[in-house]
Amino acid sequence: MTGSARGASGGHRPLARTLVAEGLGTMFLLIGVVGSGIMAQRLSPTDVGLQLLQNAMATAGVLVAVITIFGTISADVNPAVTLGAWALGHRAGREVGPMLVVQVSGGCVGTVVANLMFDLPPIVLSTTTRSAGHLWLGEAVATVGLLLVVFSLIRTGRSSALPYAVASYIAAAYYFTSSTGFANPAVTVARTLSDTFTGIRPSSAPMFIGMQVAGVVIAVVLLRALFPSPASTT
Amino acid sequence: MTGSARGASGGHRPLARTLVAEGLGTMFLLIGVVGSGIMAQRLSPTDVGLQLLQNAMATAGVLVAVITIFGTISADVNPAVTLGAWALGHRAGREVGPMLVVQVSGGCVGTVVANLMFDLPPIVLSTTTRSAGHLWLGEAVATVGLLLVVFSLIRTGRSSALPYAVASYIAAAYYFTSSTGFANPAVTVARTLSDTFTGIRPSSAPMFIGMQVAGVVIAVVLLRALFPSPASTT
Amino acid sequence: MTGSARGASGGHRPLARTLVAEGLGTMFLLIGVVGSGIMAQRLSPTDVGLQLLQNAMATAGVLVAVITIFGTISADVNPAVTLGAWALGHRAGREVGPMLVVQVSGGCVGTVVANLMFDLPPIVLSTTTRSAGHLWLGEAVATVGLLLVVFSLIRTGRSSALPYAVASYIAAAYYFTSSTGFANPAVTVARTLSDTFTGIRPSSAPMFIGMQVAGVVIAVVLLRALFPSPASTT
Amino acid sequence: MTGSARGASGGHRPLARTLVAEGLGTMFLLIGVVGSGIMAQRLSPTDVGLQLLQNAMATAGVLVAVITIFGTISADVNPAVTLGAWALGHRAGREVGPMLVVQVSGGCVGTVVANLMFDLPPIVLSTTTRSAGHLWLGEAVATVGLLLVVFSLIRTGRSSALPYAVASYIAAAYYFTSSTGFANPAVTVARTLSDTFTGIRPSSAPMFIGMQVAGVVIAVVLLRALFPSPASTT
Repeated sequence: MTGSARGASGGHRPLARTLVAEGLGTMFLLIGVVGSGIMAQRLSPTDVGLQLLQNAMATAGVLVAVITIFGTISADVNPAVTLGAWALGHRAGREVGPMLVVQVSGGCVGTVVANLMFDLPPIVLSTTTRSAGHLWLGEAVATVGLLLVVFSLIRTGRSSALPYAVASYIAAAYYFTSSTGFANPAVTVARTLSDTFTGIRPSSAPMFIGMQVAGVVIAVVLLRALFPSPASTT
Repeated sequence: MTGSARGASGGHRPLARTLVAEGLGTMFLLIGVVGSGIMAQRLSPTDVGLQLLQNAMATAGVLVAVITIFGTISADVNPAVTLGAWALGHRAGREVGPMLVVQVSGGCVGTVVANLMFDLPPIVLSTTTRSAGHLWLGEAVATVGLLLVVFSLIRTGRSSALPYAVASYIAAAYYFTSSTGFANPAVTVARTLSDTFTGIRPSSAPMFIGMQVAGVVIAVVLLRALFPSPASTT
Repeated sequence: MTGSARGASGGHRPLARTLVAEGLGTMFLLIGVVGSGIMAQRLSPTDVGLQLLQNAMATAGVLVAVITIFGTISADVNPAVTLGAWALGHRAGREVGPMLVVQVSGGCVGTVVANLMFDLPPIVLSTTTRSAGHLWLGEAVATVGLLLVVFSLIRTGRSSALPYAVASYIAAAYYFTSSTGFANPAVTVARTLSDTFTGIRPSSAPMFIGMQVAGVVIAVVLLRALFPSPASTT
Repeated sequence: MTGSARGASGGHRPLARTLVAEGLGTMFLLIGVVGSGIMAQRLSPTDVGLQLLQNAMATAGVLVAVITIFGTISADVNPAVTLGAWALGHRAGREVGPMLVVQVSGGCVGTVVANLMFDLPPIVLSTTTRSAGHLWLGEAVATVGLLLVVFSLIRTGRSSALPYAVASYIAAAYYFTSSTGFANPAVTVARTLSDTFTGIRPSSAPMFIGMQVAGVVIAVVLLRALFPSPASTT
């Protein structure tokens, strides 16, 4: 995500390279999230908490890797982050649409790869209903927190900490939000395509995404108040 | 907590911004602590150690996030740290009172949000008694250690390590102190409001807080001896 | 691996020192991987997921140690990384052959030491069959990801993050690939010599290694496109 | 341990401050090791692997804390490290004896505090026999690895990574050595004083310490060959 700070790059980036990075990055993120969920579910069938612990640790690891790999190019790998970057002035509007497309597409490819790696059909729609007011609150909270982490770092010149701070936060959010902290519309869409531990029924996805967008709005308001200038270092 | 080093900021900070950061930060900390405790308790009902492991990992993650987000403004998120900072000359006396109020208030709001996210009533007083001499010893030890971590870093110009060092320490203290290492009066008060894994009966809270304050006193004496000057770099 | 960046060393290295570092480093890696697998299998006999979690955490720890210790000399500890470094212009061709020999030899010695430490015969060929199309896909994916991590850092001047990024990635890959992410031909050969948790039947090894080499080819193509110049900093 | 690099301090240190740091540091290390072992054993009675996982994670956390707190003064907290530092020219001979005394004393006090925190008698000699050739091999291997981590960093000017590298290594060594990686004579002595998870029968201690010293000798030879000059940066 370091590449997303306009002040850091000091000019325009080639959009194609950004899109390749975002597509590959989101693909790898979903391979990690969905694949580790399947592995944990198979190996620890008797304790769901132990499954989530393994899923959370593996997700943290893959987040460190993805943000490390693509961070000097573009590593939002999350439409909520990209929308927030645009609202806060770190992304040009022309980038947003194409980025969202490759993030969602890359994520879906990642789920397919995960399914195939575990000898499952490439796409099986999830039957896990995740729909209730308290889960929606969880998604809003999770997304607000994620954007605070990302943009507090970017707006204070500490982008090199992004891989570790984001990974730590998301692993925690798997636990402290009732919804297991999706906090990412591309991840939400892609997780409809695997009927395994991390799946979400397609009919449950829209409200999750709506709450994530609401979280973006709240986070942008907070960030503008807390870190008024993009170059602010307090 | 980096913002709390007077030497680093070189002047006065707007108190309002500090208070917003401390309130939001403590709120997020409690969302993480209480929320992950509920999740772990529900998902791993048969092994309390596995519950505590999940709670400790999630707490570490949210501490990395909170200190990262608010560290350039103010991220004590703990009255014991704020009192220690005042005693060691890193905080002006006029800041202490208001900070303690927002830390406790923010923490209580965090517990309420955690309860709501998990479909529980907003406030249910805890019925978990935590009252015994060996637990009180645990709280004093836990608080001494925490303040040594925080102020050894601040007094030697290594504040950028605070998120990781504090998170590592607290996750360990959940285990090595018999009291599961609260080490934070605002957290202690806020945890009275949820009758779940991390709860503490209101009548047990005062002695915990008393021992935490005793820990502050011991830590301040040790820190003055070990790191005599605020700008000491050995 | 930092030592492998030709731009960083600015000249020739004594090959003997490189070979000692690669041999010792791969030996320690295998002690960690195989030893922790035996320990986990013995102590947690009833839950395979819990075994893998312990094996993954210990592998991450030993990777941090090995890359930290030998990183200023040479710490590929993996023929796939060495081949990738050669293909990307970071290693001279004359180094590759001897390095592969010491990596494989050092790894085998490491497995023997691990067996002896756990009171097992020095060498027992593994009887664990790991042979199926979806596992082979896992190895290719795991190796692509590993090389992206390593060389994105080296080609953007961030080699000091290698211990943490590689360890995080491999711990995650143990979970998100169906093959438990060997991603290393020397490790694959050495793991044939212990009939314990991390073992692989000798007849299963060649296809694993073949898919790892395929992963190297794919990763080199991606890396040349994403990070065109060795000194690129975006 | 950063303070132990003579090149870094450029002069003499007051020995008293070093001894206070080493005594407090080793005390806190043992509180962490022994205390978390008791907690894990009590909370997860049915799975020894899960106990060791919790003990290892907590030990890693307390190591990050202790080396962070005392690293700018003196944080060997381990006679094996202090002896290695002396043999490699990083410590004056006059410091070694007093340091060993405070390390062992501090460690014993730490075990007593841990016992008291968990409502046990202050001292109960351990009845856990740890005596066998393969365990002794484990101790030698564990100590060699630890000294390679510590002095590869010190001799290449990367001491700021010590807390994380040492913690990662020791958590891994708990698993990959059959002896659960004591690798520290002061810890070995102190762990004779608690008849709990991490205890060791006094009669088993001398051979453990002997093998640790053997590990120091091997490590010093390797380190002199790999990193010939204290100021070497490759």
